[in-house]
Amino acid sequence: MNQGIIKSNLEKPFVTESGYRFENAEVAYKTWGTLNNSRDNAILICHALTGHAAADEWFPGLIGEGRIADPAKNFIICINVPGSCYGSIGPWTINPETDEPFKNSFPAITIRDMVRFQQQLLDQLDIRGIELIIGGSLGGMQALEFIIMDKRIQAAALIAMGKSHTPWAIGISHAQRSAIFSDAKWNNGDYEKENGPFNGIAAARMMAMITYRTPEDYNRKFGRKLQNEDGQFQVESYLNYQGEKLAKRFDALSYVSLTKSMDSHDVARKRESYKEVLGNVKIPVVIIGIDSDHLYQIEEQKELSRLLGNGTFHKITSHYGHDAFLIEFDQLNDILKPFFNKYKNRLKNYDTVKSH
Amino acid sequence: MNQGIIKSNLEKPFVTESGYRFENAEVAYKTWGTLNNSRDNAILICHALTGHAAADEWFPGLIGEGRIADPAKNFIICINVPGSCYGSIGPWTINPETDEPFKNSFPAITIRDMVRFQQQLLDQLDIRGIELIIGGSLGGMQALEFIIMDKRIQAAALIAMGKSHTPWAIGISHAQRSAIFSDAKWNNGDYEKENGPFNGIAAARMMAMITYRTPEDYNRKFGRKLQNEDGQFQVESYLNYQGEKLAKRFDALSYVSLTKSMDSHDVARKRESYKEVLGNVKIPVVIIGIDSDHLYQIEEQKELSRLLGNGTFHKITSHYGHDAFLIEFDQLNDILKPFFNKYKNRLKNYDTVKSH
Repeated sequence: MNQGIIKSNLEKPFVTESGYRFENAEVAYKTWGTLNNSRDNAILICHALTGHAAADEWFPGLIGEGRIADPAKNFIICINVPGSCYGSIGPWTINPETDEPFKNSFPAITIRDMVRFQQQLLDQLDIRGIELIIGGSLGGMQALEFIIMDKRIQAAALIAMGKSHTPWAIGISHAQRSAIFSDAKWNNGDYEKENGPFNGIAAARMMAMITYRTPEDYNRKFGRKLQNEDGQFQVESYLNYQGEKLAKRFDALSYVSLTKSMDSHDVARKRESYKEVLGNVKIPVVIIGIDSDHLYQIEEQKELSRLLGNGTFHKITSHYGHDAFLIEFDQLNDILKPFFNKYKNRLKNYDTVKSH
Repeated sequence: MNQGIIKSNLEKPFVTESGYRFENAEVAYKTWGTLNNSRDNAILICHALTGHAAADEWFPGLIGEGRIADPAKNFIICINVPGSCYGSIGPWTINPETDEPFKNSFPAITIRDMVRFQQQLLDQLDIRGIELIIGGSLGGMQALEFIIMDKRIQAAALIAMGKSHTPWAIGISHAQRSAIFSDAKWNNGDYEKENGPFNGIAAARMMAMITYRTPEDYNRKFGRKLQNEDGQFQVESYLNYQGEKLAKRFDALSYVSLTKSMDSHDVARKRESYKEVLGNVKIPVVIIGIDSDHLYQIEEQKELSRLLGNGTFHKITSHYGHDAFLIEFDQLNDILKPFFNKYKNRLKNYDTVKSH
């Protein structure tokens, strides 16, 4: 996992919304393809909660020849967000004031912090134009804030999220964090990395996995089939496996930090109304909802498309629920490619006109 | 709470499906109204997961003058199920072989065990006819098994459940149990009653509360309102409150036992096909689904009505989700009363004809 990740540092201080200042903040990212001479052929992919910069591993159907993100045509980049545990600054970063990991004193990270963090790297790499930004779930929240905050972006694809984190989604985050906190090894966030609240994060992941899928998907996949003679159901064994898998690869402090980041998502916070904030975004934006998504319901994406200055709504039909954005790549490409080509042609024509 | 509960003992041994034999099993129940001379005017109400025999406390809108269960007309009874912590045998019952509470050695209880347990009390009270059985959720699972297993029952109302526990619902149970197990105080079920896995059961309850409601309900109730200056959202404070409230009143061993009972629910287990088992039930059954129930989806109730020999489906329209069966009493009475009166009139006419 995480092949080809570049580890670097932000040259300028990174200051969070809450006022914490990181010097030389570590940043992990991955790129595919080549920047053109005008340094404006970038595609920025934003990752979701437990994702990382190696987008080809979790978005395989979207990156490659003939796909929406084609390294032969574009310079593609994905940057690990602060708060995560995949190379950028996070709770296990050493606090220079104490020479110990921050752990639970790692500052709160908002979605806007994630955007400014990535902007600093993009500036450092002298990226001057971003033809497309793509993100689903937490990735979509970043992409939405990005198009409000960054004039380099020419078009955006937002998948399976909304204008703010709903109380429903916050409640789901909170119940998951409560499962982590109920594991004595959490110890208020002061644990050793090798001896963390693995059972708590596993329980949280099981809960999450349910909200990512649908009753229909579970019926098709498991029915009431038993896993073994102890009477354990297949679905129980599957959830145990998923819980353990995440506990091995993801850190509980990061899980708490990033779910709180998601809860903070609200494009109107300390700004104007939704109508004004989103209406002022004039670039073309395609907003994709999944008909069976019960976590970020399709009404949220329809609402976004109405509020954005130049938004178009598309629906993915799937029995996978929220997770469809990591599965239904054919449908995603079928929506994204015509959208991208259409607006790129328009840009090209505009350039041609200009050059006359 | 639990006003007017009668504590008694089953006179005959109660033997579980798994073969465990309880002598003088404790049974807690509550009754309203009077048995008629022919001892056949009973209404049996079955309680849900964290419910108890005092049905008037959690089904207030269904019991009373002019309601479906009217003590002036019927003898109404509700019996605490085995495995619970409200007076009938459960994990804290003393095991006579050890003189210690059973705790995690309390035998597995199936829905059919719950039915036979209640049948033994009904026999003891010499109840000869049950005009109506009503249950929602776990209560509905009992009611469904009851009408397959007990010829005394004349009519049934099944609310918000299905022919078997789906893998979706089992997954939700399992994630909740995993939250309990991740609390070190669970200690494999060997804890002192006053020092149990309160954080674990609270996290489980938060998860459950989410599956009982809907995004729309949370939007209406909480929005993104903050509870206090620490930045805690109202929905988080609400879930904390609900979690603590359940941790105070309900036992974790019972929660594990009863959720496993629910997972065992499958009317076809060790019987014929669903079509045969349910088609052979010829009494009138009204099956009520809630349009926004994401835990036991309305398709499950429609399916039940198709499979049962004499089933009629009705829909409750509500933004409350699964919990609507404990809230939308007007809609419930409006469906249940005409159903009950119609078939009672038919019975009366039939009796008249017979007496000629």
